[in-house]
Order: sequence, then structure tokens, then C-alpha cells
Amino acid sequence: MITVLRLGHRPQRDKRITTHVCLTARALGADRVLLDREDARVESTVRDVTARFGGPFTIESGVAWRSILREHAGPSVHLTMYGEPLGEVVSDLRAEAGGSVPEDVLVVVGAEKVPGDVYELVTRNVGVGNQPHSEVAALGVFLYALLGVEVLEGGFEGGEVRVVPQPRGKRVVPVDEEGDA
Amino acid sequence: MITVLRLGHRPQRDKRITTHVCLTARALGADRVLLDREDARVESTVRDVTARFGGPFTIESGVAWRSILREHAGPSVHLTMYGEPLGEVVSDLRAEAGGSVPEDVLVVVGAEKVPGDVYELVTRNVGVGNQPHSEVAALGVFLYALLGVEVLEGGFEGGEVRVVPQPRGKRVVPVDEEGDA
Repeated sequence: MITVLRLGHRPQRDKRITTHVCLTARALGADRVLLDREDARVESTVRDVTARFGGPFTIESGVAWRSILREHAGPSVHLTMYGEPLGEVVSDLRAEAGGSVPEDVLVVVGAEKVPGDVYELVTRNVGVGNQPHSEVAALGVFLYALLGVEVLEGGFEGGEVRVVPQPRGKRVVPVDEEGDA
Repeated sequence: MITVLRLGHRPQRDKRITTHVCLTARALGADRVLLDREDARVESTVRDVTARFGGPFTIESGVAWRSILREHAGPSVHLTMYGEPLGEVVSDLRAEAGGSVPEDVLVVVGAEKVPGDVYELVTRNVGVGNQPHSEVAALGVFLYALLGVEVLEGGFEGGEVRVVPQPRGKRVVPVDEEGDA
């Protein structure tokens, strides 16, 4: 189970960025996303995508995030430009999991500022580079580095449609024709 | 030279997402970003980051993007959920470049809709997965996959400060102390 925890979400200001965070989590192999602040609109958008393109993937907003962080049994990683190198942390996580992809990882993604105690509550603070960029890109690259290129090959079940890769143009087929990948 | 071309930018609506695209381009090894629509605010934000954290990195907005695409000598790749698998395209690009990182790549990143002829004007249409997610994450993962984890190790010159990776907390030092990485 890979969980993404989004902190610092402000429903008015961050709707689009947080939606990008959620959809990136789903597309790059996470199983669920949790938002600190309640936001029915983002929940609805993410559930619509999952209904159309498949799951399993769940979203919950307005969670008790400090309890979740404190009680999480597996490794938790906070993505921050101040953290340790991505390559080192991914190697460590895999080594701790006996050489394979670790189970039950909690990935914490903040908005512009996160409460200072987050740095202490997590297992690792990870820099996807040590430059200011985007929590959306940081999440995508972290999951890709952790899970490998296979994570892009699908594995979704149910939903209504699948996209079939094409050199040019767009091809979308009903799930009945393509089968559950 | 790796160039990121952002299409479909709407200055009012897309300021934050396009800023994330630009900063992701800079942090993940691109040399410059071009925006189809003129936007002095995004230009200013990106130049401020480059002045503080180093370069070289340039931004230009309001460019004649179809001419740029048509006249580009090296490979051009359009990131789209409908495109060919990332792993295959990256392998091909490296093979065409004699086994190393290709020079002079133009990476096209659209907003929600791109003009249909973009699919024809580029060398390759690439799916960073075939799921709807985020052009910011797609750009980050594409550049990471193309350039390798070393891209996160810095290599910026000038600017005022460098971030020094830390297990906990934040450490930022002046460039004089740290030297140009």
C-alpha cells in the first residue's frame, strides 16, 4: 500500500495543484491519497477519473494527519528540497525491504510551507534535487524512482476505458474491448 | 541543449501550473523554457529563482512556436497520455544519439488541449503512462528518465545560495561558502 499525504492544501487557492498531486499519485502507482483539509470538489474530480480510467484508487480529505503520520508502521518520506538525495533514500528503502519495493510507504507532499514538526515525524526527508520546483514533479519522480518504469504500464482494473498507446493521434477503447490490463 | 516548450498557457488561469512547469524544467536539467503566450509575471518568477539558485537557465514567452517546432533540428517529443511508452522512446532517443544523452531535444508540454497538428509536427508522442495526470509530473519523470538520477546532483553555476542536503531541517549556504557546484 502506497499512500500519498498532501499537507497544506487550501481549497480555494490550491484546487488545481492538489488535483495534479492526486492524479499523479494514482497514475504513478500509489493506492490512495489523503488531504489534510476537507475538499469535496477535489474528491469528486479524482473519483470521476478513477470511475472512468480504473482503480483501485481512493481519496479521503479532512484527515487527522498527525495521528496518521505518528501511527504509520512502514517508512514515511517527506519530499522537500532540503532533504537527502533521492537515489540514496530509494536504495535504503529497497534494502530495508529485502531488495524489493517496500510495502506500506507513506509519501508526504507539502504545499509551500509545512509545519516544522513534519521533518521530525517522518522516517526520511527526501530531496528530489535540492532546487525549488514543484511538489507535483517531485511526487512523480519519487514514485517513478521507487517503483520503476513498470509502474507506467498500467495494471488498472475496472473503469470504462483504456488508452491504447499510439505514435500519432489518440485511441481510447472501452474496457470490454481491451480487457482489464 | 534541452528546451521545454509550453503550449496552451493562459496567463490568468495557468500562472501557477506553468510556473511549476518552468521550475521543473530548470531543476530537472533543461536549459531553457519557451511559453507560447507572453507572460511577464511567469518570466519574472523564473528569473528570480535562477538569480537566487543559479543557472544557466533562460525563459522566453510569446514565441512563434510552430516555426520553432518545424525548424528544430534534433528530436522533439510531445508528452501526452495518448503517446508511446516512455521506456521505449527514451531507449530510442539514446540509441539514436550513439548510446548517450541526446543533444538538442525539444520537449513539448501542453495544457489541457493542444492543437491537433502538434501530434504531427513532433518526432515522437510520448506517454508518461497512459493515464490522465499532470503535465508537471510528466515533464519531471520524462527528464529524469532521459537524463538519469545524476540530473538531480546540481551543476548550477552562480546565483546566491545553495541548499545542502540534510536528514532533518533546512540548510542554505551562500555560494561563496559552498562554491559553484
